[in-house]
Amino acid sequence: MEKFVSAAGNGLLDRRAFLRGGAALAAAMTGYAVKPAAAEALTEPAWSTEPGSLVPTYGVPSKYEKGVARTLSNPNAEPRTQHARTPHHMLQGMTTPNGLHFTISHAGNADIDPEKHRLAIHGLVKRPLVFTLDSLARYPMVSRFTFVECGGNSAPLFSPEPIQANVQSLHGLASCAEWTGVKLSTLLEESGIDPKAKWVVAEGADAPHLSRSVPLTKILDDAMVALYQNGERVMPGQGYPMRLLLPGWEGNMNVKWLRRLQLTEQPAMTYYESRTYSQILPSGKAYRFYFIQEVKSFITRPSVGMEMKGPGFYEISGIAYSGNGGIAKVMVSADGGTTWAEAALQQPVMSKSFTRFRIPWQWNGGPAVLQSRAWDDQGNVQPTRAEIIAVRGQASRVPPVTGFPSQHYNGITSWSVDATGGVRHVYA
Amino acid sequence: MEKFVSAAGNGLLDRRAFLRGGAALAAAMTGYAVKPAAAEALTEPAWSTEPGSLVPTYGVPSKYEKGVARTLSNPNAEPRTQHARTPHHMLQGMTTPNGLHFTISHAGNADIDPEKHRLAIHGLVKRPLVFTLDSLARYPMVSRFTFVECGGNSAPLFSPEPIQANVQSLHGLASCAEWTGVKLSTLLEESGIDPKAKWVVAEGADAPHLSRSVPLTKILDDAMVALYQNGERVMPGQGYPMRLLLPGWEGNMNVKWLRRLQLTEQPAMTYYESRTYSQILPSGKAYRFYFIQEVKSFITRPSVGMEMKGPGFYEISGIAYSGNGGIAKVMVSADGGTTWAEAALQQPVMSKSFTRFRIPWQWNGGPAVLQSRAWDDQGNVQPTRAEIIAVRGQASRVPPVTGFPSQHYNGITSWSVDATGGVRHVYA
Repeated sequence: MEKFVSAAGNGLLDRRAFLRGGAALAAAMTGYAVKPAAAEALTEPAWSTEPGSLVPTYGVPSKYEKGVARTLSNPNAEPRTQHARTPHHMLQGMTTPNGLHFTISHAGNADIDPEKHRLAIHGLVKRPLVFTLDSLARYPMVSRFTFVECGGNSAPLFSPEPIQANVQSLHGLASCAEWTGVKLSTLLEESGIDPKAKWVVAEGADAPHLSRSVPLTKILDDAMVALYQNGERVMPGQGYPMRLLLPGWEGNMNVKWLRRLQLTEQPAMTYYESRTYSQILPSGKAYRFYFIQEVKSFITRPSVGMEMKGPGFYEISGIAYSGNGGIAKVMVSADGGTTWAEAALQQPVMSKSFTRFRIPWQWNGGPAVLQSRAWDDQGNVQPTRAEIIAVRGQASRVPPVTGFPSQHYNGITSWSVDATGGVRHVYA
Repeated sequence: MEKFVSAAGNGLLDRRAFLRGGAALAAAMTGYAVKPAAAEALTEPAWSTEPGSLVPTYGVPSKYEKGVARTLSNPNAEPRTQHARTPHHMLQGMTTPNGLHFTISHAGNADIDPEKHRLAIHGLVKRPLVFTLDSLARYPMVSRFTFVECGGNSAPLFSPEPIQANVQSLHGLASCAEWTGVKLSTLLEESGIDPKAKWVVAEGADAPHLSRSVPLTKILDDAMVALYQNGERVMPGQGYPMRLLLPGWEGNMNVKWLRRLQLTEQPAMTYYESRTYSQILPSGKAYRFYFIQEVKSFITRPSVGMEMKGPGFYEISGIAYSGNGGIAKVMVSADGGTTWAEAALQQPVMSKSFTRFRIPWQWNGGPAVLQSRAWDDQGNVQPTRAEIIAVRGQASRVPPVTGFPSQHYNGITSWSVDATGGVRHVYA
């Protein structure tokens, strides 16, 4: 019988194996279906004999999916930041459903009455403007899929020892949605721009009035005032009724509950840009600004917390993205980076959006170390962990990680599989 | 001052107007922002001075969005079919959020325990197979955006008089999501196919055991067992824990709560295929089968129920789709079909998926009749209402529409705008 083509060491198969199909595929698959048992197949449980439940006006997941939830860092809403992380290990595709989009709120979710909310554009403009939600609806809109990622996502990987936590805990501060809104270039056509303006200071209507400075070039390139998220109004945790959307740039800059855009000559050097997101380097100096979420990928299945059920066929699947553009290539290794095979990319690949990658794997039951590495279409490659640590340094402590560095980790993540099928986070 | 290029009669502008921007754009826009009022811009409502609410484990829309809901045909869950319609007039982009995806349930939503659910593949196969949710997770998956549309969507447009109802009521039985699952071609590689097999009879686990026959060619082309909807597990109303997905084909065939696929020589001629979805023609004969949801479009804004606030600039926006492929072109008219201009298509355009179209319009305050008409990339064009009525006939009564025909209306929809800014459904 024809065998699968091995595309790399330790059982990685060619990504095109399933396009060919045929006997080899059938052989690889044999045994994963439950053996036919006619009686079992024909059981009539209650849901097959009795009417079901009322169709609601707004659908929610099955009660059996209660565990598919964001994890909360501050579930009692104490007066500090609340993080809610996306459960990537339980999701598929490239869309993050609105209920599970990550959020970080520094004083909870502002509960804004959309009728009373205003957005002001002022400062170095020719005509200061104030918008209501209704007046924004008069402007032409655009839609785009894009990810939003916190600059602190994946910070545990700066730890000197690999923290045993799942992909939700390690990488759950990134999500992807279709956003619709009004491009800021459109609104600034109306306000006019004073030639002295070089920056735009964005401010939220939440109690901390979170404020960030954005170069005017980015604002005029692809920034939008986002009003819709996956078709419906943006969720409270994503800044209802409107947020700044800066595709590919650090999450914190995508100011939620947006109420003000002030054009200025200089950046405002606000709290979040001069303290939290100012990356201190081993030299003791700091990046003044670090805007872009660079090319990155991680495997979501198999991943920590899953028990693999014996040797045989598995699909390795994960997410890749780049704040610089589209994903060009994802390579996967099952032997800790010794050999690599190219993963299939789910089409269409969209710029600054999640891209789902997949590759078939024949696990022989022996030890394996799974890694993914992404390239973007602008020529950037995801660094190894060693490469990024060499430049940025390592955190001083294991959890909680409090020493710098803690920002913009985009290096490789490694999952080890042991002979029992257990999956662990390792550095390799 | 430069003027916008008029692309068709009655104020339709060139779709590229906003790419050019500049003075003409600014002029067209002037007046939609609220005039600057510094005091108003600087108010500090409660949400700007007090901590917000707890970030939940699963996000839901703002309480101010309660009206963005599906309308229910049977809100007390009486023992008959329940329809829940998507509020297209309140949505944007091309994704239908999971809470608002349309659903039709003939005996409510089956409340299935995923651990106990089984999918059987049997009949004319070499090896009958039974799958659990876990065993399906061992197979390679694919993701794709595709719409699902009920064959009875838009049935009110067969009425002899235009029914005054909004786009949710008229066209709300169509939605679009990113679906992920296992291709049936993959599962049938393992089961093997008896050469005599030509059809696959799909059956649901809900109490009515809804059952439909699908040609094997479609099953092997692009059918999947869908397990995820916009990233998370399929919603109860979409067949949790699994549904058959037949991209571009009549919604009823996309069997929900899927429990059985039986390969057969002949179609089963089940209730839904021999009665409800058997289209009776003016000649008294009927289509034996009518599988494909053909090329279609409708304008979602402006649409019935919106009050336009005086002459000036508006963006006309809507949805186009085809069960045969991708959308190639959407033309829009503001004068009831006398002149037409090409709309911009939101990229990427995906096969058998919703595509959002948009075109700028300068309304002069006079009467207007808005229409959209779509072409797909397989050479099909959306018919006028007169064209489809000529072939299919007209229903015998106005609401409720009970006379045939009631299925597969894909003709043009017309909205009239009067001098007060009111929008009505008309035949034009």
